[in-house]
Amino acid sequence: MLLSGGLDSATVLAMCRAQGLLCHALSFHYGQRHAVELQAAARVAQALGAASHRVCRIDLGGMGSSALTGQGAVPKGRSDAEIGGGIPPTYVPARNTLFVAHALAVAEILGAERIALGINVLDSSGYPDCRPEWLRAMQEVARLGTRAGVEGRPVELLAPLLGMSKAEIIRAGVNLGVDYGLTHSCYDPAPDGAACGGCDSCQLRRRGFQQAGVADPTRYAE
Amino acid sequence: MLLSGGLDSATVLAMCRAQGLLCHALSFHYGQRHAVELQAAARVAQALGAASHRVCRIDLGGMGSSALTGQGAVPKGRSDAEIGGGIPPTYVPARNTLFVAHALAVAEILGAERIALGINVLDSSGYPDCRPEWLRAMQEVARLGTRAGVEGRPVELLAPLLGMSKAEIIRAGVNLGVDYGLTHSCYDPAPDGAACGGCDSCQLRRRGFQQAGVADPTRYAE
Repeated sequence: MLLSGGLDSATVLAMCRAQGLLCHALSFHYGQRHAVELQAAARVAQALGAASHRVCRIDLGGMGSSALTGQGAVPKGRSDAEIGGGIPPTYVPARNTLFVAHALAVAEILGAERIALGINVLDSSGYPDCRPEWLRAMQEVARLGTRAGVEGRPVELLAPLLGMSKAEIIRAGVNLGVDYGLTHSCYDPAPDGAACGGCDSCQLRRRGFQQAGVADPTRYAE
Repeated sequence: MLLSGGLDSATVLAMCRAQGLLCHALSFHYGQRHAVELQAAARVAQALGAASHRVCRIDLGGMGSSALTGQGAVPKGRSDAEIGGGIPPTYVPARNTLFVAHALAVAEILGAERIALGINVLDSSGYPDCRPEWLRAMQEVARLGTRAGVEGRPVELLAPLLGMSKAEIIRAGVNLGVDYGLTHSCYDPAPDGAACGGCDSCQLRRRGFQQAGVADPTRYAE
């Protein structure tokens, strides 16, 4: 399981645990300014009974990249059209490809049969590596580029949230007892970890709770 | 460019430089017991005029993997049939997928148009992630999972050695003035860096020089 500490991957972990699956959680330190999400990932892994939780550091030889890792400003208060239109400044080059590549290696070492990830397209931020066509290409890489694949038991990539709205995801998680107060979504948190409320991720999260009719446990700075 | 410090990727760097391309070299520390190859990569990058050379550390959250990274014995003196048959014990899970994922991120950050890699299938060790079908799947990932791809200028994966024999690779490199004495191929070098002469990689290299009719500059321990 890829576990970011956010709302989506926490829901996936709860879904997999509800099926009785043994889940190893993998998080990544890639220089994100919201590295506080890694503490949320540890809380979620513990609360939902992950069998293990590893944090891998991604090293690009000292290169920064986007608003999420560099010094650029995280955009705030963007309209729906802006959030839905095109690739946002918070895009991190090849991020999910890097995450799944690491997960493929770990899955082969552990003998895991599946990799579950929380990507979804409806209420997402327009990242290319959250789309079903990207996922299918990565599945081909898993089939063709690993021992497990060549031996006829490729690691299967699962994205159970792919076609769900944020509200549907939240309702599914609440039904499974997920405490979303443990999770963190904000791209630009205050030093004390409070969410900014204005970045794309906060906006999508906040609206998801409203549309789901679920009380939002997020602590906002404003 | 993926630059391992071995014979193949040195030849690719020479080919790209001969075309007048500006080349940024990327090497990886992934816990390989032959990390001495990284010194070779630095020598090769310098000698062949790479514009930069970065070493990225790959972190799987503390997990070892294969004979190349763990404590298992590197197999020696295997027959041609053994070397050619199936996936060897020196397989490292998802290694080239991890390498190319890093290179995709770096290429987007640098604005590079291509990623060149030294994979080849004829005289290779039977790794699944050295095959053309794996390369095609990674090319799809580059096209579908990155900003550059979505914007219609996907990073192109180049593998100019894919169909060449080791002898052909060596002849091509010699014609371009590559000093193969700078390179390192052995999986199980002596503490002073001398090649073992018996691992699959040494056998393929040694035979390549013989078949190419080129003097082998490798310093062997035996």
